[in-house]
Amino acid sequence: MSPSAPREPRPRGPRPGGEDTRAAILEAARAQFATRGYDGGTIRGIAGAAGVDPALVHHYFGSKDKLFTASLDLPFNPADVIAEVLAGGIDGAGERLIRAGLAAWENAVSRAPMLAVIRTATSSDAGAAMLREFLERNVLKRVAAELTPDRPALRAALLASQMAGLLMARYVICLPAVVDAPIEDIIAAVGPNLQHYLTGDLGKPVSGDT
Amino acid sequence: MSPSAPREPRPRGPRPGGEDTRAAILEAARAQFATRGYDGGTIRGIAGAAGVDPALVHHYFGSKDKLFTASLDLPFNPADVIAEVLAGGIDGAGERLIRAGLAAWENAVSRAPMLAVIRTATSSDAGAAMLREFLERNVLKRVAAELTPDRPALRAALLASQMAGLLMARYVICLPAVVDAPIEDIIAAVGPNLQHYLTGDLGKPVSGDT
Repeated sequence: MSPSAPREPRPRGPRPGGEDTRAAILEAARAQFATRGYDGGTIRGIAGAAGVDPALVHHYFGSKDKLFTASLDLPFNPADVIAEVLAGGIDGAGERLIRAGLAAWENAVSRAPMLAVIRTATSSDAGAAMLREFLERNVLKRVAAELTPDRPALRAALLASQMAGLLMARYVICLPAVVDAPIEDIIAAVGPNLQHYLTGDLGKPVSGDT
Repeated sequence: MSPSAPREPRPRGPRPGGEDTRAAILEAARAQFATRGYDGGTIRGIAGAAGVDPALVHHYFGSKDKLFTASLDLPFNPADVIAEVLAGGIDGAGERLIRAGLAAWENAVSRAPMLAVIRTATSSDAGAAMLREFLERNVLKRVAAELTPDRPALRAALLASQMAGLLMARYVICLPAVVDAPIEDIIAAVGPNLQHYLTGDLGKPVSGDT
């Protein structure tokens, strides 16, 4: 149907090809990775859930790794969120960052791929490597570039540690006090800590790490 | 051999029973849960790794749930660490807490059960519930009891979120900047943030949450 559709085989399901098929595969991939992690999700299972032939998944995405990465980029790109937060200047960036993070996570559809990433990273070394590479490439370098010369990479990574920990506490482990707290209370409590990592005094470094 | 050994069946492996057998089962359980998470670990697999009959595992621990909980308690009990930190007073408790946490995690043997808990919590709702219950019962209530009347439960849970996030960043996702940083640099950077959760001004609460 679409000029980019594969020559063979033909899809088995109701979707004829093109952007709809691609979107259906991504949707199924996000659901599977979110539920089962990277290792538990299979091309075959994802194709089945999307109603297409597994060969079509290979045609559009090439490999499970690439499909996973593609599934991470939707429905929002953390790099865009970071860029928008940093465009407002470093002052108050901690509060704006936790506000933007919570805005994305409060929506179950936006949250699913982030949880998939966390599940994948904890369930396999390959998944941890993928998340590490994704964060390093798309998020941490961008944040570090805006920071003081005093250990910017450590600051960005500690920032990520608090964001990941809050994601775990509120949406994975579901600690009641964090689940029940109003968003604004969390922002007021966590924002200054993120700001401390961004611009605060970290003390004298033990060694010459950067 | 031991009076508490089961009537049947006899162990298949080299260990005749008693404390050695119990310790071998726990060791195997920690290794399996750390590698595969709660759902991936099986009584059969754990028994096999310990060189004993699965019935012996049931005899000593009753169920997979109870075996998991028992495997959490070793080789150190987070509640004891918390109690020791809090016994030194609330001033500086943030720094002492991250120092104690890193001391436990830097040792691969001490770290394994904590990673098992994280893996389990992210891979299944049952695992998340177990970690939630464990934290609530053994850690968070104890911390909250020492804190200001201003939302002590939220403070304790946010503290846990940063600790969990750092565990993820340094030992699971392995972000290079956090992995490479000297322990003392991490303590100096994270300690004040934990202290902020313990005793800092969190701002005016939006609602009457406690």
